[in-house]
Amino acid sequence: MNHFVSVADVPDIPALVSRALAYKNDPYQDVTLGERRRIGMLFLNPSMRTRLSTQVAAQQLGMEAVVFNVGSEGWALEFEEEAIMSGNTVEHVKDAAPIMGKYFDILCIRTFPSLKNREDDYSELYINQFIKYAGIPIVSLESATLHPLQSFTDIITITEQLALQGKLDTATGKPARKPKIVLTWAPHVKPLPQCVANSFAQWVNAWGEADFVITHPEDYELEPSFTKGATITHDQDEALKDADFVYVKNWSTFNDYGKIYVNDPEWMLTNEKLALTNNAKVMHCLPVRRNVELSDEILDGPNSIVTTQAGNRVWAAQAVLSELIRRK
Amino acid sequence: MNHFVSVADVPDIPALVSRALAYKNDPYQDVTLGERRRIGMLFLNPSMRTRLSTQVAAQQLGMEAVVFNVGSEGWALEFEEEAIMSGNTVEHVKDAAPIMGKYFDILCIRTFPSLKNREDDYSELYINQFIKYAGIPIVSLESATLHPLQSFTDIITITEQLALQGKLDTATGKPARKPKIVLTWAPHVKPLPQCVANSFAQWVNAWGEADFVITHPEDYELEPSFTKGATITHDQDEALKDADFVYVKNWSTFNDYGKIYVNDPEWMLTNEKLALTNNAKVMHCLPVRRNVELSDEILDGPNSIVTTQAGNRVWAAQAVLSELIRRK
Amino acid sequence: MNHFVSVADVPDIPALVSRALAYKNDPYQDVTLGERRRIGMLFLNPSMRTRLSTQVAAQQLGMEAVVFNVGSEGWALEFEEEAIMSGNTVEHVKDAAPIMGKYFDILCIRTFPSLKNREDDYSELYINQFIKYAGIPIVSLESATLHPLQSFTDIITITEQLALQGKLDTATGKPARKPKIVLTWAPHVKPLPQCVANSFAQWVNAWGEADFVITHPEDYELEPSFTKGATITHDQDEALKDADFVYVKNWSTFNDYGKIYVNDPEWMLTNEKLALTNNAKVMHCLPVRRNVELSDEILDGPNSIVTTQAGNRVWAAQAVLSELIRRK
Repeated sequence: MNHFVSVADVPDIPALVSRALAYKNDPYQDVTLGERRRIGMLFLNPSMRTRLSTQVAAQQLGMEAVVFNVGSEGWALEFEEEAIMSGNTVEHVKDAAPIMGKYFDILCIRTFPSLKNREDDYSELYINQFIKYAGIPIVSLESATLHPLQSFTDIITITEQLALQGKLDTATGKPARKPKIVLTWAPHVKPLPQCVANSFAQWVNAWGEADFVITHPEDYELEPSFTKGATITHDQDEALKDADFVYVKNWSTFNDYGKIYVNDPEWMLTNEKLALTNNAKVMHCLPVRRNVELSDEILDGPNSIVTTQAGNRVWAAQAVLSELIRRK
Repeated sequence: MNHFVSVADVPDIPALVSRALAYKNDPYQDVTLGERRRIGMLFLNPSMRTRLSTQVAAQQLGMEAVVFNVGSEGWALEFEEEAIMSGNTVEHVKDAAPIMGKYFDILCIRTFPSLKNREDDYSELYINQFIKYAGIPIVSLESATLHPLQSFTDIITITEQLALQGKLDTATGKPARKPKIVLTWAPHVKPLPQCVANSFAQWVNAWGEADFVITHPEDYELEPSFTKGATITHDQDEALKDADFVYVKNWSTFNDYGKIYVNDPEWMLTNEKLALTNNAKVMHCLPVRRNVELSDEILDGPNSIVTTQAGNRVWAAQAVLSELIRRK
Repeated sequence: MNHFVSVADVPDIPALVSRALAYKNDPYQDVTLGERRRIGMLFLNPSMRTRLSTQVAAQQLGMEAVVFNVGSEGWALEFEEEAIMSGNTVEHVKDAAPIMGKYFDILCIRTFPSLKNREDDYSELYINQFIKYAGIPIVSLESATLHPLQSFTDIITITEQLALQGKLDTATGKPARKPKIVLTWAPHVKPLPQCVANSFAQWVNAWGEADFVITHPEDYELEPSFTKGATITHDQDEALKDADFVYVKNWSTFNDYGKIYVNDPEWMLTNEKLALTNNAKVMHCLPVRRNVELSDEILDGPNSIVTTQAGNRVWAAQAVLSELIRRK
């Protein structure tokens, strides 16, 4: 593993899941591994769980994590090649990134999409420029189109739940039978990136151990290269039937990019809808708009595993960082 | 001690004072105590001394302190139960707090009052919701109505001064005779919380080792449950007479909540007024508006102990954190 | 060395350069030196390289670095003596600085000039007030008129380049023959401080091992006390002739203070101009406005050493911090 920006960087998902769960069992087992190593954490956008869980993971590996909020502590970066920088951007990534490569062993970056220009966002220019110029491993803390630490956490969490339910083949680390996993769109008050949905689809498909269904209203189709392999339906009730896991998430439109079309509150998951499932565990990446995306009754009920899921962010980050350190 | 949000959390004030002074004497004596422990420090509002002194205290206990500025690095939290989150708040404390409980061993929080709705502020909803949902010890870095780390520091500082003056019974750690302590209101340019005054009153009363007088102009009465036990007077000169310690602080009105009524510059402490006292030591929590709240001549004069007091913030925080670690 | 705010604080420049290069060769050789020591890093203005390189340097010395963004995490400081603080400033440096002196072993401060009032800026009131009141060593992370960590880095970088070229007398650590060093003004889109130019001039002059030329358009004269000893010319081509090092930097006017007069794009360094030099190495403190201050062809070409230079910021900071620790 040279970088961690997409599932394509991971040669063996179940092996990485095993490592993460081993850290959960014994957090400080590799506390000397990161000695005299540093990660830089660059935030072009806000973050809570990703920020904190990565700091915790670094500490448990004995590494120093240095946080830098690019906007408020520094200045606007330029990402376009050959730019004549007479505008608002103060420093080009071509100049900033190689210096990060001198100060740190691993560079972690969060950068959101504009939601204004699909082609630009889906080119992943920002994170790709850091890969191109930093000269050290890059870890995505969520980029314009993907959120791999979240999705890796999701696979860890599903695996862990299956193990708790006695449904995991412990020899292979794979499900004894494929669980039905449903990704369902949910309403929201403002247009959100497609990252979490894209990335979850990408990881579940790459993992290949699920009967995977995506459901959303018309007009909310996702980028096909990420969803390919999943069953896609506009009928939420049909999708939820016999589900083992329901992943709830809002996203804005992909085709007519970054818009909210229908925002039907009927799409919010309730206990009534949960009754259609196979007593499914309910997941969400957080933050969640209560009683808009997800009802209190679900979030406060016995089927929600969102806190466990968010807690697992630490072990995902720790497994990824440890892989990148060992690589060097 | 399960939390530290009020004097009510402290079973034995003199014992905690002794521990703090022991740390002042030997800062690193418990440097292994906090190994592999982490505190999260959440700032919903700005902070300098509290922030820095707590970070220093954590380091001296061998702990990692992770700072998170909720507003600028994250997003607005919701605290109301059953809220339909279609407004500006992005995440409910019910979801955020338990995750902090997974990432940290102790959670420290600063949250100011609105000064708009007294009932809301005095319900201490924010910090109480963290206590309810985080599942780990909560330390107040100043809340809507109290500032316990400051007030604990104030008792430490008074105790230390009495010891320096040979007026402390070293066997009990208590004053040989009760010093006269005066809390006096001072002018300011904007409406401030009542926290420091409430909390100082609460701690001096709980400590029970002082002749305690509070003086302020009419209309600046504080919440009686905090001041009960103190003598209250509108005559500042009368109050200052023979005082051993004068604590200077502005606060806004409590009854007609959050207002500035009279703002008479005559209430600013001067050397002329100090002459009424028993050569009193002058205290202030800082930041202080020079020549508005307190004159240069006092702050730069021999009776001011505000720097010593602010320095003692470290030992207060260290004593509290060490108690909370030992508890676990 | 008691502070580090100007070249005047450095008794022996080549010795400090040697120490920095020794750290570059073996970064952790003094990792126990800073044990149980802390630096506070106060930012009144944004910073990237200076911030990160100083944190890295502190870590490599085994010290804790505590960052505090004064504006966003705290509040506005007052620097004028005898101020009646009824305006926007919340805390006086007379009160804040001595407390920093209690919390930290070394205090590092970044503070920019206003560019509105030359006399005020050149009085260096802010950093001098910290020196006056903190009671601990002060390190400038760039002040109103100087940027000594940058300039020290620049001397390190020049020395290192000369060594690579076999042009350094290894016995003395000094050049075998004086290299020609040219500081050239460059265009920019907004008025910038004179700090980097002032400071570079001050250090090259104090170092005394160069044939030093400064070139800029009319009206961009710098403060003579810093430039004294350099040849000053308005003819850039003449200046560049046979140069071994070209330092490119924009600054605003000094006499009619803080203005942009001519902003002729012809002053941007290009390969055509570089051809006039002795195959000069090109330096810049960064951030750089590409294709405004410096062309892509130069920055991406073989003569640019800006990344090496920025990387050397770590070793400069580490040498300075280690000197200040040893002093205590």
